[in-house]
Amino acid sequence: MPIRLDTTAADFDARFAALLTMKREDAPDVDEAVAAILADVRDRGDAALVELTARFDRLELTADTVRISPAEIAEAAAAVPADRRAALELAAARIRAYHDRQLPEDAEWTDETGATLGWRWTPVDAAGLYVPGGLASYPSSVLMNAIPARVAGVGRLVMCVPAPDGQIDPLVLLAAQIAGIDEVYRIGGAQAVGAMAYGTATIAPVDVITGPGNAYVAAAKRRVFGRVGIDMIAGPSEVLILADGDNDPDWLALDLLAQAEHDASAQSILITDDAALGDAVAQAVERRIPQLSRADIAGASWRDFGAIVVVRDLDEAADLANRIAAEHLELAVADPQALAAKVRHAGAIFLGRWTPEAVGDYVGGPNHVLPTARSARFSSGLSVLDFLKRTTLATMTPDALGAIGPAAVTLAEAERLEAHGLSVAARLEKLNR
Amino acid sequence: MPIRLDTTAADFDARFAALLTMKREDAPDVDEAVAAILADVRDRGDAALVELTARFDRLELTADTVRISPAEIAEAAAAVPADRRAALELAAARIRAYHDRQLPEDAEWTDETGATLGWRWTPVDAAGLYVPGGLASYPSSVLMNAIPARVAGVGRLVMCVPAPDGQIDPLVLLAAQIAGIDEVYRIGGAQAVGAMAYGTATIAPVDVITGPGNAYVAAAKRRVFGRVGIDMIAGPSEVLILADGDNDPDWLALDLLAQAEHDASAQSILITDDAALGDAVAQAVERRIPQLSRADIAGASWRDFGAIVVVRDLDEAADLANRIAAEHLELAVADPQALAAKVRHAGAIFLGRWTPEAVGDYVGGPNHVLPTARSARFSSGLSVLDFLKRTTLATMTPDALGAIGPAAVTLAEAERLEAHGLSVAARLEKLNR
Repeated sequence: MPIRLDTTAADFDARFAALLTMKREDAPDVDEAVAAILADVRDRGDAALVELTARFDRLELTADTVRISPAEIAEAAAAVPADRRAALELAAARIRAYHDRQLPEDAEWTDETGATLGWRWTPVDAAGLYVPGGLASYPSSVLMNAIPARVAGVGRLVMCVPAPDGQIDPLVLLAAQIAGIDEVYRIGGAQAVGAMAYGTATIAPVDVITGPGNAYVAAAKRRVFGRVGIDMIAGPSEVLILADGDNDPDWLALDLLAQAEHDASAQSILITDDAALGDAVAQAVERRIPQLSRADIAGASWRDFGAIVVVRDLDEAADLANRIAAEHLELAVADPQALAAKVRHAGAIFLGRWTPEAVGDYVGGPNHVLPTARSARFSSGLSVLDFLKRTTLATMTPDALGAIGPAAVTLAEAERLEAHGLSVAARLEKLNR
Repeated sequence: MPIRLDTTAADFDARFAALLTMKREDAPDVDEAVAAILADVRDRGDAALVELTARFDRLELTADTVRISPAEIAEAAAAVPADRRAALELAAARIRAYHDRQLPEDAEWTDETGATLGWRWTPVDAAGLYVPGGLASYPSSVLMNAIPARVAGVGRLVMCVPAPDGQIDPLVLLAAQIAGIDEVYRIGGAQAVGAMAYGTATIAPVDVITGPGNAYVAAAKRRVFGRVGIDMIAGPSEVLILADGDNDPDWLALDLLAQAEHDASAQSILITDDAALGDAVAQAVERRIPQLSRADIAGASWRDFGAIVVVRDLDEAADLANRIAAEHLELAVADPQALAAKVRHAGAIFLGRWTPEAVGDYVGGPNHVLPTARSARFSSGLSVLDFLKRTTLATMTPDALGAIGPAAVTLAEAERLEAHGLSVAARLEKLNR
């Protein structure tokens, strides 16, 4: 049974705090194994990749077959049914259009001293995208990771996807083709992360690695962070729905189950100011679960982590939403704009009854790689900015240095950094001569 | 003796590669000790802080004296000489003016399907700034970390600074006052990072922790990353100067030494197309070192990690600069704009002979917290964005869902996420009835 809370109950605060801190994942401690794999790939390169792939994916590769050739990709892509290709192309076009608008502007201005200041954005040279294999191999994630990189102007885009027993989802390869990925390799796990971070004879190193993965991939990304940039370490998915009484309970039940079916550790929460709607949604969920092909997963998630919270009013709902800081937030209310204005922390907001979260997973346009586990308090979903970096610019004139240089000398002396002060003072001397 | 390279030498590629990968730091492995400190602070809160501060800083605190009161700050600040106060205020005003321009814009638009899309930036609720104690306690860093947070609109700004034997630099407290920090605590090390990340009875937790620190602080930041946001794990400082022949060798020598004096692990590199200038700068450095109060540090840095590289022309210099991806890049050339346009990777660029890097450390305006150790390939200096996060927004209308929903259903089916598809399909059914 999902958790049922009511803000008018005496023990609400304690029970809500418990909901916020409940542990949903027992991440296995694979850090030592991952450290060994990374060291092996760094030291032995392709030879390590071939051995590790034979061991973990039961696939015999050579340095020549680590890469999936463009011909193989084209062949697999050609076999995808037309409706699926069209859907992927629509998704790609919409994701591209949304992310195009995220390109930040350079700036340059001259201030009152005559100093010219500003900054400039440039893309990283190369980005690597990790795509999980097997059941969690999602073509939509290929688009969501690759398109922002392409929009940012990244020169070289690499993708690694494991091929357990040689199998790769053709739709993933089509997505790679549509997104314009330059190189695709059939390797996975920590060894793929290591190959992209350190490089091998076959795979040149990249500057940023993004994409979801299992515990090994997550631990490997954490370890190579600093040598390369990484996106984030994602936890299990979450949805929070704020709903008034005027909703179809079945729609909301399906929205809750769309998260629950991802993973037994996923979490779906409904907050409503209408207790009767809460009951109706709970019943609709129970009715729907047995009909789902993933009934086991969705049922376990809902039973262990699902929650329905009844609040006095929607202001209270917004307060709770800010404490939850959900990855996905649906606002199924009469005035979703007004409610959205009260939400400070959420990865993505889906406004109104006609915006199921699942539309955002595929074709809405915004990115579906979003901060989990309350990290929307301080972090953002994947964007073009993850593939860009900013260089600050400053140009002093003699006059500008004359105006502000003396303060720099004073502060350098205060910080006992003598050469700092002298480097400015030497120029000021010439000015004053 | 610093390294001397010439791009026309037969062994240049190998020697330059060695320069790029040379290890400058032997970071002590304090991870286990840090894990224990963090667990202790999480479990025992203020009691752990008091004990750890007595042990590491030889300072007896109680829960009541952990915080430095506004009266104490005001008293310390009032004792700072007027010229230093004026210099800090000028620095603060210039940093604020620069960072004000970094505030990103929200966006909202309606596309051809009728879907309204966009995003919104919001500040984190609370940020914590770590300031090292002792010799590395820099008031300029207080401004560089706190002002972007304040500009971002962060509601609560916390600072932790250790007070070894009870001592704190009054200028640091004045900087905290000028920057508008709300709460200052006299604790340091991993225990301060733990207190800000987990919270104690006295110190409420924050959402983002920034600021430099020793190996303990760096390891603690790495460990709490995910629970809170962090800025970056900074390595030793670096400067790269690209210079043509028309420079005063003494100015460039002082610029090189301004980095070298930070830390024996700092690195200063000069690349020039004029071998005679390279020689003259090398001589000027040797002449200057013994005059410096930090001659030992600056001398060790220059001897162990300093380098002078002679190139055929400035295009070659730009190529090498992109491979080095320096934290600080000075362009002491006749046309610095043209050369800057060829540089893709650098934390901050200082253009022209009148822009010594040290002016940027204090009063230029741009942030002095910048990516080290070649991480300018993929990351940026500290900015207002580090204290903001982006929430994506999507609003579908029935028409918009009718237009793009079927593609979402197709992709959900392809990914075997049945409830995803049903949540969209249920709404489409109502449309089609």
